[in-house]
Amino acid sequence: MISFTCDYSEGAHPRILERLAQTNLEQLPGYGMDHYSISAKDKIRAACQAPDADVFFLTGGTQTNSTVIAAMLEDYEGVVSAETGHIGVHEAGAVEYTGHKVLTIPGHQGKMDPKELEAYLEAATTDPNYEHMVFPGMVYISFPTEYGTIYSKAELTQIHHIAAHYGLPLFIDGARLGYGLMSPACDVTLPELAQLCDVFYIGGTKVGALCGEAVVFPRGNAPKHFYTITKQHGAMMAKGRLTGIQFDTLFTDNLYFDISRHAIDMAMELKQLLKEKGCEFFIDSPTNQQFIVLENSNLQELGKHIAFDLWDRVDQNHTAIRLATSWATPAEHIQALRNLL
Amino acid sequence: MISFTCDYSEGAHPRILERLAQTNLEQLPGYGMDHYSISAKDKIRAACQAPDADVFFLTGGTQTNSTVIAAMLEDYEGVVSAETGHIGVHEAGAVEYTGHKVLTIPGHQGKMDPKELEAYLEAATTDPNYEHMVFPGMVYISFPTEYGTIYSKAELTQIHHIAAHYGLPLFIDGARLGYGLMSPACDVTLPELAQLCDVFYIGGTKVGALCGEAVVFPRGNAPKHFYTITKQHGAMMAKGRLTGIQFDTLFTDNLYFDISRHAIDMAMELKQLLKEKGCEFFIDSPTNQQFIVLENSNLQELGKHIAFDLWDRVDQNHTAIRLATSWATPAEHIQALRNLL
Amino acid sequence: MISFTCDYSEGAHPRILERLAQTNLEQLPGYGMDHYSISAKDKIRAACQAPDADVFFLTGGTQTNSTVIAAMLEDYEGVVSAETGHIGVHEAGAVEYTGHKVLTIPGHQGKMDPKELEAYLEAATTDPNYEHMVFPGMVYISFPTEYGTIYSKAELTQIHHIAAHYGLPLFIDGARLGYGLMSPACDVTLPELAQLCDVFYIGGTKVGALCGEAVVFPRGNAPKHFYTITKQHGAMMAKGRLTGIQFDTLFTDNLYFDISRHAIDMAMELKQLLKEKGCEFFIDSPTNQQFIVLENSNLQELGKHIAFDLWDRVDQNHTAIRLATSWATPAEHIQALRNLL
Amino acid sequence: MISFTCDYSEGAHPRILERLAQTNLEQLPGYGMDHYSISAKDKIRAACQAPDADVFFLTGGTQTNSTVIAAMLEDYEGVVSAETGHIGVHEAGAVEYTGHKVLTIPGHQGKMDPKELEAYLEAATTDPNYEHMVFPGMVYISFPTEYGTIYSKAELTQIHHIAAHYGLPLFIDGARLGYGLMSPACDVTLPELAQLCDVFYIGGTKVGALCGEAVVFPRGNAPKHFYTITKQHGAMMAKGRLTGIQFDTLFTDNLYFDISRHAIDMAMELKQLLKEKGCEFFIDSPTNQQFIVLENSNLQELGKHIAFDLWDRVDQNHTAIRLATSWATPAEHIQALRNLL
Repeated sequence: MISFTCDYSEGAHPRILERLAQTNLEQLPGYGMDHYSISAKDKIRAACQAPDADVFFLTGGTQTNSTVIAAMLEDYEGVVSAETGHIGVHEAGAVEYTGHKVLTIPGHQGKMDPKELEAYLEAATTDPNYEHMVFPGMVYISFPTEYGTIYSKAELTQIHHIAAHYGLPLFIDGARLGYGLMSPACDVTLPELAQLCDVFYIGGTKVGALCGEAVVFPRGNAPKHFYTITKQHGAMMAKGRLTGIQFDTLFTDNLYFDISRHAIDMAMELKQLLKEKGCEFFIDSPTNQQFIVLENSNLQELGKHIAFDLWDRVDQNHTAIRLATSWATPAEHIQALRNLL
Repeated sequence: MISFTCDYSEGAHPRILERLAQTNLEQLPGYGMDHYSISAKDKIRAACQAPDADVFFLTGGTQTNSTVIAAMLEDYEGVVSAETGHIGVHEAGAVEYTGHKVLTIPGHQGKMDPKELEAYLEAATTDPNYEHMVFPGMVYISFPTEYGTIYSKAELTQIHHIAAHYGLPLFIDGARLGYGLMSPACDVTLPELAQLCDVFYIGGTKVGALCGEAVVFPRGNAPKHFYTITKQHGAMMAKGRLTGIQFDTLFTDNLYFDISRHAIDMAMELKQLLKEKGCEFFIDSPTNQQFIVLENSNLQELGKHIAFDLWDRVDQNHTAIRLATSWATPAEHIQALRNLL
Repeated sequence: MISFTCDYSEGAHPRILERLAQTNLEQLPGYGMDHYSISAKDKIRAACQAPDADVFFLTGGTQTNSTVIAAMLEDYEGVVSAETGHIGVHEAGAVEYTGHKVLTIPGHQGKMDPKELEAYLEAATTDPNYEHMVFPGMVYISFPTEYGTIYSKAELTQIHHIAAHYGLPLFIDGARLGYGLMSPACDVTLPELAQLCDVFYIGGTKVGALCGEAVVFPRGNAPKHFYTITKQHGAMMAKGRLTGIQFDTLFTDNLYFDISRHAIDMAMELKQLLKEKGCEFFIDSPTNQQFIVLENSNLQELGKHIAFDLWDRVDQNHTAIRLATSWATPAEHIQALRNLL
Repeated sequence: MISFTCDYSEGAHPRILERLAQTNLEQLPGYGMDHYSISAKDKIRAACQAPDADVFFLTGGTQTNSTVIAAMLEDYEGVVSAETGHIGVHEAGAVEYTGHKVLTIPGHQGKMDPKELEAYLEAATTDPNYEHMVFPGMVYISFPTEYGTIYSKAELTQIHHIAAHYGLPLFIDGARLGYGLMSPACDVTLPELAQLCDVFYIGGTKVGALCGEAVVFPRGNAPKHFYTITKQHGAMMAKGRLTGIQFDTLFTDNLYFDISRHAIDMAMELKQLLKEKGCEFFIDSPTNQQFIVLENSNLQELGKHIAFDLWDRVDQNHTAIRLATSWATPAEHIQALRNLL
C-alpha cells in the first residue's frame, strides 16, 4: 500500500548508497576525523556562505535537539518554544532529562508570534520573583514547523532581534530544512537563515539520508568542547564516515536542494489534487506536509487504500490527517491517489 | 597506509550494503516497527536460544551503555566495573551524566576478579555508613575486555552468581562480542552467555555494521518502557530499518560469526608473526586486539609504514601499542606487515 | 512597618525555641536517628491515624517537592499539576533539574478540575504517539493552593480515584497544610486527607517552624531507600534534632492545629475588614492568604504603611495584591490595618 | 553515656539560641534578604579580609558540596579529589546525581599530594583520547581532611598554583574549617586561605550552628545566578534568618574562632591522655578528630562506657576508632575518660 504517512519511510537517496559502497573498504579514522566528514563540513560552510561556521554531524533529530539545548543553556535556564514545538511534545522528555524546562508560549499553526515572544521575555525578566523561576536561556523554533508552516524572513529577523535583545541565542530546528527552503512561499535563503540565528541544523534523516543531522554554528560560535558534549549525550556516531559521506553527497551538485524541491513539487501537486477534490484543509501548508479534515466515516475507507497519519481530533465527527511527501515520493504515488479519489 | 589502529576503520560488510540497496525504496514504518527489525530480533532470539528475550537496536556503544545502565539502576545506585572498564574511562562521563557513579574495583588485564567483586559487595552492603554511600546496583563487565582478554565460563558463572546473590543484575558489554565468542580460548557459547547474565549487547559497530548494537534482555526482562527510555537517552534510530536490516543480515547464514572468526584468524596469524619476530607482548590476548611493547625509538619507524594505536607508557623507553584486526582485515595486510618486519 | 507579605516572616513558635534551648546540650545522633525525631514521627502517625505511615523530615518545601517527585517517578515520567502549581512556577526549575517534566493542565483559582484531569490522563494514555511522549507518573496538588483555595473532600476523593485508576500516586503539597485544615470551609480532616492520597507533607516552615517539612507516606509506602534519596537530593538535615524537636513540639498538645486556627481567625477578621471597607476581592479565599484588587494609584499609598505582596497585574490600572496572616500574626496588626483604612 | 562519636552531637552554641529567641518575632524577608544575613556576610568578608567576596548561606555540607561543584563545572567536567574525599565517599552520590564524575587521585592520610595532582592533570590534559574522557574541571580538597589532617600553607600554595596552571578553580571544603585554623599545627590564617583558593566554605553545622554553611567566593567570583542555582539544588533556606542570625553570631566577638580553639584544646588534652595511656595512634591528627587503634577484644568493653565511631578495620584483630571533640565538649568529658582508662 502507498504510504504518505511521513517523510522518513524510505532509505537514502540512491547516490548516497552508491558512495557508501564505493568507499566502503577505505580505512578511515572514526568520530568524524575522516576526510569525507571534513569535506562535507566545507561544503556546508560554502552552502551557508559561512566560512567560519562550526559544523558537527549528530545521529538524529531528538539527539540534536537535546544536545544543542543542553550545551547552550546554563543549569538554571530553560528553552522558550511554541507549545507545539517538537521538543516539548514528541521527544519523550529528552530535554527535561538533561535538566532543562521547556518554557512554552502559544503556537499559531506551529509558529510563535514575535510579539508574544517579546511580551513573554519582558515579563519573565522583570518578574519580581524571577530569581525563583526558570530563566529563559534560548529561543527554539522549527523551520518548517511541525504543522508545515514557515516563518518569513521578516519574522525570522524579528525573532532573532528580540532574542538577541534579551541576550538569548536563537536555535532553528531544521529537521525538514530543505522542505522549508524549497517551498514557493519561502523568502529566505540558506545563507540568510544562517545569519538570522545562532545555531541551526540541516536535517538529513527526513531529507534523503539514512540518519544524521548537520549542526551549524554559523559564526564559529560552538560551545567549548561541543565534540565531547556530543559524545556524552549519546549523539555521536562512532563511524563518522556514515554521516560524513551522506552529507558530502547531499551537498555535492546541489543534491540536498534538488531532492527537497522534488518533495515540494510532489506536495504542491498533492495539494492541488486535494483542492480539486474539494477537501477541507486543516492548515494551508506550503511545504511537504499537507493536512486535511476528513469525516470519520471516510477515514477507514481511505485507510484501506493508502497510509496516512492521524493528526488531530477536530470534532466528534471529523479528524485531521497528515499526508507527507518526501525526496522519495514518485509522481506515480500522486497519480494513484488521484485515481483513488 | 595499512591501518591496524582499530576495528571500526572500514564501512560495513558488503552483504549489508547490498541489502540496504535492495530494500531502499520500500516504504517502512520508523522506530523499529519495520519487518526487518522484527525479523532480526527473531533471528537473534534464535541464535541466543532465548525465545522470550527482549531485543532492541540502539545507535552505538556509548549510547547503549549509558541507556542500559540508567534504565536498570535506581537513582541512588551505581554500577560496579573494573577500573579499566570502558564506561569509567572513555565515554566522556556519559554514565555520570545520567546521575550514576561508576564504582570501580581493580582490573586485571581488563578483567575483574570474582573474589574481589564479592569482597567489594560484601563490604559495601555491610558498611555501617552504607545509607550515606552509593549503593551497588549492577555489575558491568566487557566481553572481550578493553585489553582483549575474555572471561571463562567458570568465571562468568561465578560473577553472575555473586551478582545475583547481592540482588544485582549482570550487564555484559559486547561491543566486540563476536571477537570474544570466536576466540580459540573461548569456552562459552552465545546461548550460554545469554543465560549467564541479565542483559548484554551484541556489538554491530565493531563487527561488520555501519552502526548499531543489539541489546538483549534474555529472559524477557527489559525494564518497563525501555523503548521510550531509549528515545529519551538519544539512543534510538528514527529509521529503524537501518539497524534492523543490518542485524537481519548479520544473523542470516551465520554471517556475524563467520566474519568474527575471520578477524580472529587474522589476529592469530598476526600474533604468530609477532612472536616469530621476537616481539614482547604487553598482554597475552586471545582475541582481535594484540598488544606489544616497543622501544620508543622503534615507534616512529614502524609508524611510517603502518598505523596503530598507542596504548600505554610502559617505562621511560618503552610504549605498549595495540594492533587490531577486524571482519575486514584482508590476509594481505598481515602479509604486508610480515614483509615489513 | 507591619508586614502581611507572607507567612514566613517570623521565626518559630516560642515553645519550639524553648524546647531547642532545653535540649541543646543533649548529645544526640545525627540524621534523624535521635529520640525526638522518633517521637515526632510517632505523634504524626497518631495525628494522621496512620499507624503504618513512613514519616521523614526534610529541610524545606522546594527540597521536599523535588525529592518526593524524583523518588516516585520513573525516568520517563512527568508529574501532572495545575499550571499554577508551585512546582511549575516558583521553584527555579528544581523538578526539571532532576530530569522530570511538569505536565500542566488548567488551574482554576489554583485548583485542578477532576474532569479535566481525567480527560488529560485519558488522552495522554491513549495517544497513538504516547511512547514518544512524557508519561504522566504522578498527580500533584497543593492544599491549600497557591491562591488560598482548598479542595473539598468530594474533590479530593475524585482526584485520588482518577489518579489511582490510571495507576498514578497522588501527592499533596501541604506547605500550608494547617491553614487549609483549620479553614471554616474545610470539610476534610488530617486522617481523611492521609487516606485520600499516597504521599503528602505537613508544612513546618510556614506553620510555626524555623524550617522543615514532614513527609508522610500514609500506608508505609515510602520508596525504597528514601532516606538515601533524601540525602542525595540535599534535602536532609545533618542535625536531625532540629526538625525532630520542632515537629515533636508542633504535634504536642495540638499546637500545630491551634496556631493554624489562630492564623485563620486572623485571616477571617482581615477578610471581614476588607469587605467592610468595600475592597474588591481577586479570589474568595477561605484560608490565610487574602487577595484583593487595588487601583494602581492606591498601591503606593498603602505601601507606605504596610508591606504586602504584589500578586498579579489585573489590567492597566489595577493590580491584585496578597495579604497573608500566619501563626504569628497578632490581633494588633489587624487592628492597625483597620485604623489605617 | 558520654559520646565522642562526632562533632555534631549537640545543638548550637547558647549565644546563637539567645539571638534566635531575641529576634524571633521580628518580621523579616525570606531567602537571605534579611538584615542579619547581610550583616553576617559583612562580618565574614571582614574576617576573610576579602571585601569583594560573594558570600552565601546554604543548608548543609552535602548541599554545599554538590551545589558549588555543579555550579562551577561545565557538563563535561569532573572534580578532582583525593580518593578519601567526602564527596566521593559519603555523600550518597549527590555529586554524580548532578551529572559530574569525581575523579580520584591517591589520598595520603586524607590529603592529596601536589606532585600527584600535577602528574594527574598533566596526563589527563595530554591524553590522546582526552576528548573521550571526563575533563578535570575543578580541584577539591577538605581542610581539615576527613582524617583530621591539614595542609600547610606551602602545600595549599602549591595546589592552588597547579590548579590555576591548568585553568581549574580550587574548592576547599571547610565543614570543619575552624578546627583546622585553630590547630597548633596550622600555619595559615583565614585571610590567607581565602587567597589560596577560588571558593571555600566555613562550616557551621559542625562548629557551633544548628545548620548552615557559609560559601565564600573570595574575589567576587561567584558563578552567575548562584542564588537561583542554590534554590534549584535544594540548598536554600526559606527563612534565611536562621542561617543569617547564626553566622552573624558566630562572627561576632570572635566566637567562631574561640569555640573552635576550645574544641582543639579538648582534643589536645584527649590526645595527650591517649598517649599517656600508651594507645597506638592510627593517624597523628592535629585537629579535633583523634584516631587510635584498639584490639577488637577491647572495643566492646570501651563501648560500654563511652560512645565513639568505628573508623576502619586495621587487621583481623584490630580496629581503628575515632574520638571527636567539638565546641561543646566539656572538660569533664575528658576527665571522665581519664578516670575510665
